[in-house]
Amino acid sequence: MKLTLPPLVSAASFQRALAAFERVVGKGWVLATDEDRDAYADIYAPGSENEWPASAAIAPASVEEIQAIVRLANEYKTPLWPTSRGKNLGYGANAPRMPGTVVLDLGRMNRILELDVGLGYCVVEPGVGFFDLYEHLQREKAPLWMSVPGNAWGSVIGNALDHGIGYTPYGLHARNLCGLEAVLPDGDLMRTGMGAMHGNHSWHVFPLSFGPDWTQMFTQSNLGIVTKAGIWLQPEPEATTVLTWDIPNEEDIGWVIDTVTPLKLSGVIDQNVFVPSWLGKLVLKGQRKDFWDRPGAIPPSRVQELLKQHNLGYWQAQVRLYGNEAVNRAKADVVQKAFARHLPTPPTQEHWKLGEPLSQFDITAGIPSAVPLQMSDWVGGRGAHMGFSPVVPASSKHVLGQLQRSRKIIAAHDVDFYASFTVSGRFATNINMLMYDRDNTEQVANIRKLFNALIDETAKAGYGEYRTHLGWMDGVNNTFNFNSHAQRRLNERVKDALDPNGILAPGKQGVWPSVYRDRAGKGGPA
Amino acid sequence: MKLTLPPLVSAASFQRALAAFERVVGKGWVLATDEDRDAYADIYAPGSENEWPASAAIAPASVEEIQAIVRLANEYKTPLWPTSRGKNLGYGANAPRMPGTVVLDLGRMNRILELDVGLGYCVVEPGVGFFDLYEHLQREKAPLWMSVPGNAWGSVIGNALDHGIGYTPYGLHARNLCGLEAVLPDGDLMRTGMGAMHGNHSWHVFPLSFGPDWTQMFTQSNLGIVTKAGIWLQPEPEATTVLTWDIPNEEDIGWVIDTVTPLKLSGVIDQNVFVPSWLGKLVLKGQRKDFWDRPGAIPPSRVQELLKQHNLGYWQAQVRLYGNEAVNRAKADVVQKAFARHLPTPPTQEHWKLGEPLSQFDITAGIPSAVPLQMSDWVGGRGAHMGFSPVVPASSKHVLGQLQRSRKIIAAHDVDFYASFTVSGRFATNINMLMYDRDNTEQVANIRKLFNALIDETAKAGYGEYRTHLGWMDGVNNTFNFNSHAQRRLNERVKDALDPNGILAPGKQGVWPSVYRDRAGKGGPA
Repeated sequence: MKLTLPPLVSAASFQRALAAFERVVGKGWVLATDEDRDAYADIYAPGSENEWPASAAIAPASVEEIQAIVRLANEYKTPLWPTSRGKNLGYGANAPRMPGTVVLDLGRMNRILELDVGLGYCVVEPGVGFFDLYEHLQREKAPLWMSVPGNAWGSVIGNALDHGIGYTPYGLHARNLCGLEAVLPDGDLMRTGMGAMHGNHSWHVFPLSFGPDWTQMFTQSNLGIVTKAGIWLQPEPEATTVLTWDIPNEEDIGWVIDTVTPLKLSGVIDQNVFVPSWLGKLVLKGQRKDFWDRPGAIPPSRVQELLKQHNLGYWQAQVRLYGNEAVNRAKADVVQKAFARHLPTPPTQEHWKLGEPLSQFDITAGIPSAVPLQMSDWVGGRGAHMGFSPVVPASSKHVLGQLQRSRKIIAAHDVDFYASFTVSGRFATNINMLMYDRDNTEQVANIRKLFNALIDETAKAGYGEYRTHLGWMDGVNNTFNFNSHAQRRLNERVKDALDPNGILAPGKQGVWPSVYRDRAGKGGPA
Repeated sequence: MKLTLPPLVSAASFQRALAAFERVVGKGWVLATDEDRDAYADIYAPGSENEWPASAAIAPASVEEIQAIVRLANEYKTPLWPTSRGKNLGYGANAPRMPGTVVLDLGRMNRILELDVGLGYCVVEPGVGFFDLYEHLQREKAPLWMSVPGNAWGSVIGNALDHGIGYTPYGLHARNLCGLEAVLPDGDLMRTGMGAMHGNHSWHVFPLSFGPDWTQMFTQSNLGIVTKAGIWLQPEPEATTVLTWDIPNEEDIGWVIDTVTPLKLSGVIDQNVFVPSWLGKLVLKGQRKDFWDRPGAIPPSRVQELLKQHNLGYWQAQVRLYGNEAVNRAKADVVQKAFARHLPTPPTQEHWKLGEPLSQFDITAGIPSAVPLQMSDWVGGRGAHMGFSPVVPASSKHVLGQLQRSRKIIAAHDVDFYASFTVSGRFATNINMLMYDRDNTEQVANIRKLFNALIDETAKAGYGEYRTHLGWMDGVNNTFNFNSHAQRRLNERVKDALDPNGILAPGKQGVWPSVYRDRAGKGGPA
């Protein structure tokens, strides 16, 4: 990819900045060739990766190097886009929001700094991936389980900072963050929570501070570069019981939600319950052309045939209970009775006890995997996906309304409908996976139009996305319109106070520093 | 109490400000006589209430009135100290940190705006007390339980914002806050989380936002006036089981913590487990003079006699299990086995089922009470208390170290030792109650010296307080010294950006706006 300079930076000044960065990290760790830039493109970009081009990347190895880089970035007015491991697929991978921004690749900072088995936490650097941590826990024979996202090749910290979701009792990853360290946009270094006291022993166990706690300010944020964080881990249970139901009909999601939510709120079910639709199973069995070889969305009649042929429900609901065997048994009984009020077929049951092997693809046991990435192959060609991800209250009224609205809009755009709901207690996240061939111009244009329509119609109905792709960050931010965008005003005031030169991740989640504020809404999708 | 003007405000300007405030709230709701000021004094002040005097109070009835007051406060440079119900006893009640600050009394804003039984939350204004909400739930026959602090005559929102702790599964009150509305220091109105979108249905169910979530920024904070908030409530359980152990010896707290923590982390125990020492029971049975009539701390030999006479353990540990009866039974078995490894005596058991009456003083069932306030009568005279409240990791090493350190310092000051630990999972809060007669100058001077010593020695050992009295906010803030007080620098930068005139709660938690920053450390204890 050819060089796109950062806005407001001349070619000469940019070269001087790169030379200065090299003096900090060493020549090998400033990456600025065309090939380097290709490596920092969004490989799932809906269209050309040139839409969100990085000008270069810098890979520091320490907090001190990051501080030095940030100070130089202020001096040279060079914007930086921090990424942990850059695996945020479907949301932009490691590409920056503003063309020409320099990626600050934290992948080399991959140390596991602390592991406290008794108190159930670790302290990691941003480059630590889920697989790294998993292997470390295995090696140390630490009786702790992780919570992982569906595709777990990314960073533990990066995923938590981006509000990622997992399928264990620790599934709201941002809330597992306890005490973090961040380099501020002026190069200052601070620690949140009890870590604000030098040497405090409670840094990674107490999730508040004396005064306001700033931890959540650094999530989905461009206000600091997180350099380490405490992550809470689940004690390995003595036993688990997995109950799985195939749920026959699309509209059944209503009673499934109304059954699971009270069990979640009353503490019978601890995990986030994932309820994917049939297409989530089919993408693992082959490509679209294996099941339907005509253009346009698979028609409902064919869907019914496929469900029968492959012995699938429209949805699958799976509940895992963790802990003491007798407690699990009593809980399983409560859960089964609740489901039996709606579905006569009993669930399949799987029982696991400490010491027995676990399936290597078991996401509800916190084992990292990238198996579901296979969905990108669904349409063939240079396949990719984007997720449309609104949050709804976990009740049938809201869930059915959301289902019907998305389905209608997606059908109107003649695209395969792949929905899932994850019940996290009082709310459910509804992920609508949209698959496309990046080289099919027509398909890409259609997906982009569809994505715009989904955001608009969903906001009109009173729901918002918890996360989105680079190209739609301004659009989604725009839907947060209470009191003429009061939250945006607050975001911008804090941004300008902490980052007067606007060097940190301009445009992230639609928050622009004053120097680039006129770019909001630009570089997004047509 | 005679008038103390706000700093930098002339008498004439102050009168003009009051007149302007009156035009907003009506004449009756600006309170500025000597008697009015008495009503806003810290009735538990360690010494004279004149140390933290309010100049006046204003009691608005609506968000619009608050916005108008805040704009006027900016115009007249009049600092405001928002209180919800002002019952923050032991931490300053409703008195302001900076002498002459005008109290903004939100007690009239006491509406319960929403109650969602299925999703388990309510939306309340800051003037809603725990008793108000309890009575509302009873009246509506809503199957929801609250979480209340030990003394529950305060505000639901106020307590959560001040990082208050309760003794149910919802005991970390700041984490029950989901979606709040706040008037910013310039009078702007914003909503956090999904509420940042007008009419969003997920405001009070999804605890994050698109972009950074600002909810926690408004806790223990002077960056906004919270005008309403979503509060999560616990679904009424079908049944509960209470297990109570008298724990014989002081050092037994070590194994108690090491027994409770793994049960909390593995999900067997959901609630915050409160472990008070014997004095917590004795303060309810009489005054100090009934048990020991000489000056100075009750000596250890007399303590042993009292424990025998009153049939008390040094500690009491109580565990409540909530939910389905069979699940509770299985859990109770696990808990009993764990305790039996250290203590042969079985616990007393109490079983409750839906439909049966609950004790009116049952804090673990979320029933508000002010019974423990009786401790203020312990020393006689115009009795009061302050709490020294460090947070420690929930393991014997840290808890025993903290116990021994506090005990030694408190004994060296010849003051009765009343400790409790509340195990909230990975951390425990250690409340050390210090009782005194406000009119006994010598006693007060000794308590103040003791408090300073506790803060200093505890910080040296690597622990910090989660909350403190007005007079020690600067002192505790000072102990948060990582990277030469980096958290304070961040607090101050955000403060100055959002509140350039420094009108909102100057000095709260040791955070001072630039205009009053030279006052940090002043007006605190000698």
